[in-house]
Amino acid sequence: MQDQIFQLQYAMDTFYFLVCGALVMWMAAGFAMLEAGLVRSKNTTEILTKNVALFAIACIMYFVCGYSIMYGGTWFLSGIQDVDTAATLADFAAREGGFEGGSIYSAASDFFFQVVFVATAMSIVSGAVAERMRLWSFLVFAVVMTGFIYPMEGSWTWGGNSVFGMFNLGDLGFSDFAGSGIVHLAGAAAALAGVLILGARKGKYGPNGEVRAIPGANLPLATLGTFILWLGWFGFNGGSVLKLGDIASANSVAMVFLNTNAAAAGGAVAALLLGRILFGKADLTMLLNGALAGLVAITAEPSTPSALGATLIGAVGGLIVVVSILTLDKLKIDDPVGAISVHGVVGIWGLLAVPLTNDGASFFGQIAGAITIFVWVFVVSLIVWLIIKAIMGVRVSEEEEYEGVDLSECGMEAYPEFNKS
Amino acid sequence: MQDQIFQLQYAMDTFYFLVCGALVMWMAAGFAMLEAGLVRSKNTTEILTKNVALFAIACIMYFVCGYSIMYGGTWFLSGIQDVDTAATLADFAAREGGFEGGSIYSAASDFFFQVVFVATAMSIVSGAVAERMRLWSFLVFAVVMTGFIYPMEGSWTWGGNSVFGMFNLGDLGFSDFAGSGIVHLAGAAAALAGVLILGARKGKYGPNGEVRAIPGANLPLATLGTFILWLGWFGFNGGSVLKLGDIASANSVAMVFLNTNAAAAGGAVAALLLGRILFGKADLTMLLNGALAGLVAITAEPSTPSALGATLIGAVGGLIVVVSILTLDKLKIDDPVGAISVHGVVGIWGLLAVPLTNDGASFFGQIAGAITIFVWVFVVSLIVWLIIKAIMGVRVSEEEEYEGVDLSECGMEAYPEFNKS
Amino acid sequence: MQDQIFQLQYAMDTFYFLVCGALVMWMAAGFAMLEAGLVRSKNTTEILTKNVALFAIACIMYFVCGYSIMYGGTWFLSGIQDVDTAATLADFAAREGGFEGGSIYSAASDFFFQVVFVATAMSIVSGAVAERMRLWSFLVFAVVMTGFIYPMEGSWTWGGNSVFGMFNLGDLGFSDFAGSGIVHLAGAAAALAGVLILGARKGKYGPNGEVRAIPGANLPLATLGTFILWLGWFGFNGGSVLKLGDIASANSVAMVFLNTNAAAAGGAVAALLLGRILFGKADLTMLLNGALAGLVAITAEPSTPSALGATLIGAVGGLIVVVSILTLDKLKIDDPVGAISVHGVVGIWGLLAVPLTNDGASFFGQIAGAITIFVWVFVVSLIVWLIIKAIMGVRVSEEEEYEGVDLSECGMEAYPEFNKS
Repeated sequence: MQDQIFQLQYAMDTFYFLVCGALVMWMAAGFAMLEAGLVRSKNTTEILTKNVALFAIACIMYFVCGYSIMYGGTWFLSGIQDVDTAATLADFAAREGGFEGGSIYSAASDFFFQVVFVATAMSIVSGAVAERMRLWSFLVFAVVMTGFIYPMEGSWTWGGNSVFGMFNLGDLGFSDFAGSGIVHLAGAAAALAGVLILGARKGKYGPNGEVRAIPGANLPLATLGTFILWLGWFGFNGGSVLKLGDIASANSVAMVFLNTNAAAAGGAVAALLLGRILFGKADLTMLLNGALAGLVAITAEPSTPSALGATLIGAVGGLIVVVSILTLDKLKIDDPVGAISVHGVVGIWGLLAVPLTNDGASFFGQIAGAITIFVWVFVVSLIVWLIIKAIMGVRVSEEEEYEGVDLSECGMEAYPEFNKS
Repeated sequence: MQDQIFQLQYAMDTFYFLVCGALVMWMAAGFAMLEAGLVRSKNTTEILTKNVALFAIACIMYFVCGYSIMYGGTWFLSGIQDVDTAATLADFAAREGGFEGGSIYSAASDFFFQVVFVATAMSIVSGAVAERMRLWSFLVFAVVMTGFIYPMEGSWTWGGNSVFGMFNLGDLGFSDFAGSGIVHLAGAAAALAGVLILGARKGKYGPNGEVRAIPGANLPLATLGTFILWLGWFGFNGGSVLKLGDIASANSVAMVFLNTNAAAAGGAVAALLLGRILFGKADLTMLLNGALAGLVAITAEPSTPSALGATLIGAVGGLIVVVSILTLDKLKIDDPVGAISVHGVVGIWGLLAVPLTNDGASFFGQIAGAITIFVWVFVVSLIVWLIIKAIMGVRVSEEEEYEGVDLSECGMEAYPEFNKS
Repeated sequence: MQDQIFQLQYAMDTFYFLVCGALVMWMAAGFAMLEAGLVRSKNTTEILTKNVALFAIACIMYFVCGYSIMYGGTWFLSGIQDVDTAATLADFAAREGGFEGGSIYSAASDFFFQVVFVATAMSIVSGAVAERMRLWSFLVFAVVMTGFIYPMEGSWTWGGNSVFGMFNLGDLGFSDFAGSGIVHLAGAAAALAGVLILGARKGKYGPNGEVRAIPGANLPLATLGTFILWLGWFGFNGGSVLKLGDIASANSVAMVFLNTNAAAAGGAVAALLLGRILFGKADLTMLLNGALAGLVAITAEPSTPSALGATLIGAVGGLIVVVSILTLDKLKIDDPVGAISVHGVVGIWGLLAVPLTNDGASFFGQIAGAITIFVWVFVVSLIVWLIIKAIMGVRVSEEEEYEGVDLSECGMEAYPEFNKS
């Protein structure tokens, strides 16, 4: 009977991972809709293409080499043949901690969960470089980002079993529960490098320093994307507990769901109110970015705050994102969807908020971790973008940008029948 | 080992609650898309803003005071620190019924499930008052509705442990499994109060009593919203069994999924056929409202009917909703998305259908419950709307309504590039 | 305690089925969005109506007679009253294999899972016959397809307990894990019969054999639909393991999730690259069809390949679908959304790929199964379409086709405010 109990726990933890992984996969649709809603209609087909293709590339590259770099071992070649129930049960019985100890679950479920994470990091990049980058240059970058840049920094934080994991940020007191830094800040750092290489969209900044609003073409899509991300984030954070099948773990997973939701709510309301103060209106795009900022902010530690704490951590994220978006525009760093602010600036805030509720993290460790992640991803990305620029170019021609990248890159309009103004 | 079995059951029930809660959260996206698809393009940004903001407000207000009013206790200030496996296991072992008895699961998972329910009730209101209400007046109402009006009536039905729960409708033979009355009728009652205060949209009713159709701008969105709600409803009804982890409970959850789907199918087909008879065409908006009506109708008791019974209960809901929408228009009660008919009129039908299959409910109890919920929510909402009207106004100016509330309330068009006819 | 362990396993397997079934139900939204995005705006309301209505019809018909034909027994009339925990536990204890043996779970959860499958098969048809078929003729076909044609072939493959299941393709070495043939090829065969009866859309093929592109009106919707299908497919394939609650089963479910994702990624990248070679651009619609082709290809056997194998099986599917779409156009078989290529041609590839990794299947058996399914569904569908044509007609008038079927069939435009070019 003890064996049967172990088997049930194994099955339960595996299923929990798969459900959470499926929710994270769903975030790919969220990014696609968010970005497609926030760009102009003439650049919509291209951003949809990028989002689907980068997800597929991320999955393949992480299979091929990313997972091995980050966690050691390989999964690409082995199928289901290697299931050995007896060995798994012996493993279960032998380990310290017994029933409530470490996690044992299907390795394939862990792999599935990890593979959708890397796609999230890459999805962050696509929005920031929208409306002026060559599609194929972007996809080449996606290959390097998902196969090498992200897995390397992942090995220093969540990894440890790979040859690259000998240096471990956790030893410095760094803690990043579900990836405010490891995933979101990393994605934003790669995006920032790309944006600096690319430059701003034509017409975004006037000759006298004025910032011109370029409204998104389809706000229902952007709203849908935000709701999809909100939902998917329950898997992103909830799955990062890594275990469900005992009382303490189940309580932790439940608290993570609760706090993830509370932080999104806090970020949304804070951004809505700040937008009202600054602009006199209820600014929908700030509201959406506020909700996302709340989600990013709580991601570094969703398990220890109270609901009130999570709401406040999210609310601060919501305030930061509004200020950051306005500031980046003043600096002429052109990010059409606000990805650098949402995932990068607020990602840092999320890391810094961890020691407020989690004694296992130190401010020193968090700052060291943030700097390490940012410098690694930013510098290597910059180099890669520059190499791509030298070989195949990164920016479409002025005429192509004027006509829209949908025609030059995809040969297809997103809304061919609707007359555009 | 007995402890381990309890722990697995606890974890399973907790996870079941979280998955169902995530599906209910997803209904917020469904309402947003449904309503955004059924209003005119000039009022789309505003309704998206309302839907995101009301969800966030609902979560915060229910944290702050709603849950305490409805169920007693407080959750807002406590984090995950209070996990005590030993105490939980002792609780498990001590309770009557043992393994198959009452539910024990993470309190945070229950809280998460409850908090997304209150948002559903509030989402019902936003569609009915669309295209002419001031945004900030609506949001103030949302604060009162989610923090006070809904929790109060909830305490008389599902609650019982709060100080307000001393009066309990269940004592009268009232039974409302997942909330045809407590959630859907309540939302519709608040909406009706708002609509009566607001009046109809300009041009909806002609001087000679003619009813003018105002078509929604984006029917794919409305269809998507309906599918989202259909999916989310499995969590709404399925989670309301409140327990999964034994054979009888699992059977009940499965039957609820099956019947929820059957009722939606029945409602859809019935409304499609009645629309065909009345209008000579396949009316998509009636089809969508029919599916939703089927879902509302089965919500009061999805566990006891057979699949045939559920299909018929849903089908009657589908017929009622078509007649109700036409009738409300004759009464010049202007509800742009049909929310009062779908959630209110059909919600009453759902309550009345319970005694047909559930011996624990009486017609008297159902009628008493429906009246109590309606009167409470309608009267208090009316008072609150009137206060809001006196202080800050509820209706936009005629010119703002003509230009669209997107510009006046949000300063932003939903589809800025598409030329409008 | 042994009883309690059985109860937990029963509850876990039931919940797993329900979650997977909910994901498959969600695929209905995916088909609706995909097809609505790929047709012209004047035919969008109609295709939305078809997709919602066919799902509802499929559910009802499968309740009424489909399930009985396919699996024997009946479910339509019985409710939850018949739960008998003691009998279930006795059944559990008595069966051979014990804990790790065959599946025992709620019959209602199995029924729910099966009922959403039949809707998937029917959804495949609607896209292929889009933009020129009468709505009510299509719905009559849906009644026959979901109530009779699909259940009959299902009884020869997955069934076996019904009176029609005496002939079983499995005896010939046929294996179709989740339905590349039984669901996808079957849907495509019915679609092909319909398309041949209907003929091509006006203007699709020029007098000199030229093929004219008719672009879809809303590519974000088509992309959203693809992501929805990708997500839902985890339930489609993952649920087809039919059991979760022991180590071997959990490993199998996890591997199926992993491989389903890998195959979609492989199909997407392969179709993107082939499109680039053939057309010189990144063709979004080919990319989407490539991802779907990868999913269809792996559906016949997602549990035995390695991740590399799954990626390659998907990639071959992605190449096939591009070639097939171009070939069908040369043959003047007009399929507006590519459904026959994605589900039919690639479905055959999926069946043929099974023996590569699964020793239990033979090429002979797979070919025999594919031919049996195709011939049965195609011939009976052809007869049914011809009868429908004789009685009520299948094609709208030329003028109605020119004006769009939205007006003639539904009396309602999908985007009434956006000026069309």
